[in-house]
Order: sequence, then structure tokens, then C-alpha cells
Amino acid sequence: MPENEASLAVVDPPLGRSAVLDAQRRLAGRVTRTPVVRSDDLDRRGAARLWLKAENLQRGGSFKVRGALLAVERLVAAGSRGVVAQSTGNHAISVALAAGQLGVPATLVLPSDAAPTKVRRIREAGAEVLAAGTTLAERIAVVDELRDARGLDVVDPYQDPDVVRGQGTATAELLQQVREAGARLDAVVLPVGGGSAVAGACLAVTGEQVEVVAAEPAAVPALTEALATGAPVTVAAHPTIADGLRPDRVGQLPFDICSTAVSDVHTVEEPEIAEAMCAAVLQARLLVEPAAATALAVALRISRLPRWRGRDIGVLLTGGNVEDSLVAALLAGTARPAVQAV
Amino acid sequence: MPENEASLAVVDPPLGRSAVLDAQRRLAGRVTRTPVVRSDDLDRRGAARLWLKAENLQRGGSFKVRGALLAVERLVAAGSRGVVAQSTGNHAISVALAAGQLGVPATLVLPSDAAPTKVRRIREAGAEVLAAGTTLAERIAVVDELRDARGLDVVDPYQDPDVVRGQGTATAELLQQVREAGARLDAVVLPVGGGSAVAGACLAVTGEQVEVVAAEPAAVPALTEALATGAPVTVAAHPTIADGLRPDRVGQLPFDICSTAVSDVHTVEEPEIAEAMCAAVLQARLLVEPAAATALAVALRISRLPRWRGRDIGVLLTGGNVEDSLVAALLAGTARPAVQAV
Repeated sequence: MPENEASLAVVDPPLGRSAVLDAQRRLAGRVTRTPVVRSDDLDRRGAARLWLKAENLQRGGSFKVRGALLAVERLVAAGSRGVVAQSTGNHAISVALAAGQLGVPATLVLPSDAAPTKVRRIREAGAEVLAAGTTLAERIAVVDELRDARGLDVVDPYQDPDVVRGQGTATAELLQQVREAGARLDAVVLPVGGGSAVAGACLAVTGEQVEVVAAEPAAVPALTEALATGAPVTVAAHPTIADGLRPDRVGQLPFDICSTAVSDVHTVEEPEIAEAMCAAVLQARLLVEPAAATALAVALRISRLPRWRGRDIGVLLTGGNVEDSLVAALLAGTARPAVQAV
Repeated sequence: MPENEASLAVVDPPLGRSAVLDAQRRLAGRVTRTPVVRSDDLDRRGAARLWLKAENLQRGGSFKVRGALLAVERLVAAGSRGVVAQSTGNHAISVALAAGQLGVPATLVLPSDAAPTKVRRIREAGAEVLAAGTTLAERIAVVDELRDARGLDVVDPYQDPDVVRGQGTATAELLQQVREAGARLDAVVLPVGGGSAVAGACLAVTGEQVEVVAAEPAAVPALTEALATGAPVTVAAHPTIADGLRPDRVGQLPFDICSTAVSDVHTVEEPEIAEAMCAAVLQARLLVEPAAATALAVALRISRLPRWRGRDIGVLLTGGNVEDSLVAALLAGTARPAVQAV
């Protein structure tokens, strides 16, 4: 490892708010400062003001490019000759983009029933795609095998501190943009897959009076059960249209960060996710994927509670990589409650 | 008229670029500085870079609030007790919002088959809606009648200099945002209804090397025929899904501005408008109305021409007020070529 890399590691701040702000400086100009969108129509459905962070307009179609860029950059600086990652899709797209930009090959392990749009985007970025079962454990097994057999470096979507603080920059940016608009957030709502978004948010709001509210499909209540148990547990996962939220277990690092910092977790049934996705398109005029709609559903739900009357609620619309056919079916009201097996 | 209003009128710059920049200062903080969105997926369809000005995310759902605020404000300052306007919808929504904000009643005259979403938004803003036939001439007759009978002040969507320079601020803002991103536009594409958007753009680009390209439905080629004739003419209008582009005659003021300053006009068939609307949703992740999609269709078309290879093309996505059912039908590929009579 060259000396400057070693010293880079030394000056890294511990994992807290300053680590997120440091990540933000490193990402400046390399990721899109996505807009924050207001919608009178959505606000009218409750009594709070919603501030929608449109990461569906981010490079690669999701906020995950933030963490992937930081993580892959560090591995490349340390001499990596190739990276491997497992993901339901968006982390994989982001690692593929980052690896392509930084000039190393990437292999991505997705579930065999991954959204075809996500597989296509990975291939467009010039990376290799492997299908491995349908569960998190099956994908991790293949990643471990590739690491050992090919000497690839793993970019873990939940456990890598660079990934977590990188994802936190989306929330940090949202807080700043709301301040620039002359307001102040009281809460931010984020979806939970493996937990990196919500963990990053917990880091980003440290020291501020901002509640972090987690949203997950009732079909895969991984954070709800982890908080009840006091540790990450593998949950019985049922089918959900929120393909990005299919991991049936939250990561240990996100759990350690979230377990004391998350103020609430809501589970959302499939029809409510579908309805929120239609609302995003038709009322906020933004196409988001069902994972992002899960967070919007919770924001709409709490905005009707007396406690949130007149308050300002941020929503991380995490991504917009969604099948054309699913969008058409949801808007036509013909989508089955769940279109994808876990 | 109070003295400060008189002096305000005196210092108004003549209708040119400085009039647009002056309008921009007056509108600062009162309209949304809408984001400019890039889409790799759309760029890949041609050889140019597209910069999408997302006025579908504007207050009232379209760029027309810019001109309406300026025009209604001037009338109110001059003592107006109430305003009236005709429109296919977006100008009417914007006048209703402006009048509500400035505390005067508003009456809006729409075609009898106006998009229900637009009628609802006007009523939500607290204004009165009247239906009058299906042609521009029928609506104008009712406006004139209301002006004479009730003493209302008319906010003309095409002829009012405040409206034209207000609409021009959308293009001025787009040029600035592209510069802030380190690039420079070579052209901007706008849809043509009565002509205020494209006329405002002509004012905004004065003195810059930016071509103004107009886009209109082949069903209502009002600018194409006006330019061929040398004066605004009423065209035979056929059904189009682009309800915002239904005026069958461009205004005299927009024509006078455009006739020497527009560099090209393209007409777009209905299937191409529908396809561009789907592309905006699925590839740029923005819900736009068919009028805006008409401009996008032309931008996608010219981006494939050798002349525009490697160039930067702005697109004014003018609005996002569209029927839920139309969005669903278009995405499902089941929309009839034209769903609305002229």
C-alpha cells in the first residue's frame, strides 16, 4: 500500500456525522446533487410538509452510487485488481459504475429473479452478472467463493463503513437543502433493505433534532424483528414488489448504528406500497421504485398523525430503477399485490 | 394608480433579454427554481446531451405560473378587482394561483372538454371555471363578454408582454443552470401552443449563440403555418393528446418575436408524442404532460442528426398536469392515438 493511502486511512474520522461530511466532500462533483421536490398534492393528504429527496434522479438511478464510489475507490487505492458484490440490484449497479469509472473489473451477484432493468444496467456499465438463488445467504455464499477463488475484493452493501457513510451523504444533503429553503426537518423517513440508508441517516443527523423513521415492507420486517430481538435475525420473507428491500436480515454494522438512533420503524403492506408509488408518479411527478415508495407510504401515514401536524418530514426517495411493465400495471391498477418472489 | 406603480411602469425595460432578467429578479423566491435533469438513457438514444428543465415540478404543475404572477401582480397594482383568462388549462391554473395569492377573484374560461385534472386544480385554487366550446375563438368570445359585463381584467396567455417575459424566465434559468454545471447550451427546444414559451425563449437567448427550436403537434401546426404565411393564421386543428398545445392560432406578439428568432419548427405525430411521454417517465423518471413530451420528442429526433452530435440541447418540460388514466393507458401501450377532441 503506498504511503499516502496509509495516511489516508489514519486521518479517516470515526464513524459519525463528521465521517458523513467528509464523505460528502470526497463525493462533491462526482455524484448528482439531486433536487428536493415539494408537492402540494401530497402535502394536502396530511398535515405535514413533505420534502422529497429525488435520488431516483441520481447517477445509476439510486443513492447507492454514493457509498459504492467511496468503497471501490478505497479498494482500488489499496491495489485491488477487481471487485465483487452481492445485491438485489441497486448496490450492484452502483459498484459496476464505480468500478468502470475507476478502471477495475466488477462481478455482481444478484438473485436469479432480479429486476431485468437492474441486470441490464449492470451489463451496460460493463460488469459481469451472476445469478445465485433468491436469498441473501445464497448470494453471500457465491460472493465468498469468488473472493477466495479469484482474489476479488468484496464491496459489502451493509457492512462496509465507506458504504454506510456514503449513503449517509444523501440525508446530509437533504438536511442542507431544506435549510437553504429556509426550513428545518423534524424527521427523515428511509426504507430498510440491509440497513445502510437508515444507518447512514442516523450518522448524518447526529447532534440535530431530527428523528430517523425506518420503513420496511410487512413482507420482510428485518429491522422490526432485529430491534425486537436485540440483534440482526433472518426473517421469514414473503413476496414483495419492493425488490430493493428483499434482504431478509439487516447488516450488523447498520444494526449497531440504528439500534439506539432510529426513532421508529413502520411496516407497510403491499397495496400501500403500490399506492404510494402511484402517488409519487401522479402527484409528485417522479418515477420511483417500490423501495422508495415504501418510505413515502410511511411519510404519508405519519403526516396524518396529530404529532406531525405542521412539521417538516424528509423522505429519501432512494431510487427509480423499476420495470416498465410494473409501472404500467400499478398505474392501471392491475398489478398483483406481489409480483416478485423473495 | 399610486405613484410607485406609475414609476414602475416607466422603468420597465423594452421587451428583450433584459426584460426577462428583470422578470427573473421579480420572481425570485416566488417560483420554484426547478431542477435540470440529465438522463444517460435518453442521451444514449442520440449523440447529443439533453438538459431537461423540469417545469413539471413547478408550482401549479407548469412554467406558466411565471408569466401569470407578473401579469396579475401588475393588474392588481393598477387597481384590478378581478381577473379573467382563457386557456386550455395551465395558464388558467397559474392565473388562479396568482390571483389567490394576490387576493383578487379569478374567472377562468376553458374548453368544455378540458383535462379534468386541470379543472380540479383551478377550483382548488379557489377560482371560478367556465366551459366554452372547444375552439380558441369561442373561449375568447366568452372572455370578452365577461370583461365587458363584469369589469374584469383580462390576462391574455399569448399577448401580454408580462406573460411572455415571465415565461422566458424558464429558459433564462435553464441557460444559467447549464452554465453552473460547466456546460453551454447550443439549442433549446420548446413546445408551441399560443407561442408564449417559445417567444419568451427567443427573448431569453438574445445575444447568445443558442438556437430556439419549436415543437408542435402535427395535428395543430399553428406556428408552422404562421411562418409559412407570414402572419398568425387559424389552422384546421385535429385531435391531439397534447391538450396544452390545442390553440389553433399563435398570438400576434409571440409571432412577431418568433418569426425572425426561431431557428426551426418541427411537427410531431401523435405516436411520437406518446412515446416521448413514456420515455420521460421511464427513462428520465419525470412525469410530464404530452405538451412537454412534444418538445422532448423533437429533442430526441434532432439529437440523432449529425449536426447535433456532441452538442448540448435544452428541453423545456413545460408541465406535468396530466390525467392519471392517460398516463396508465400510454404506459400500458393502450392509449388511442388521440384521446381528446380539439
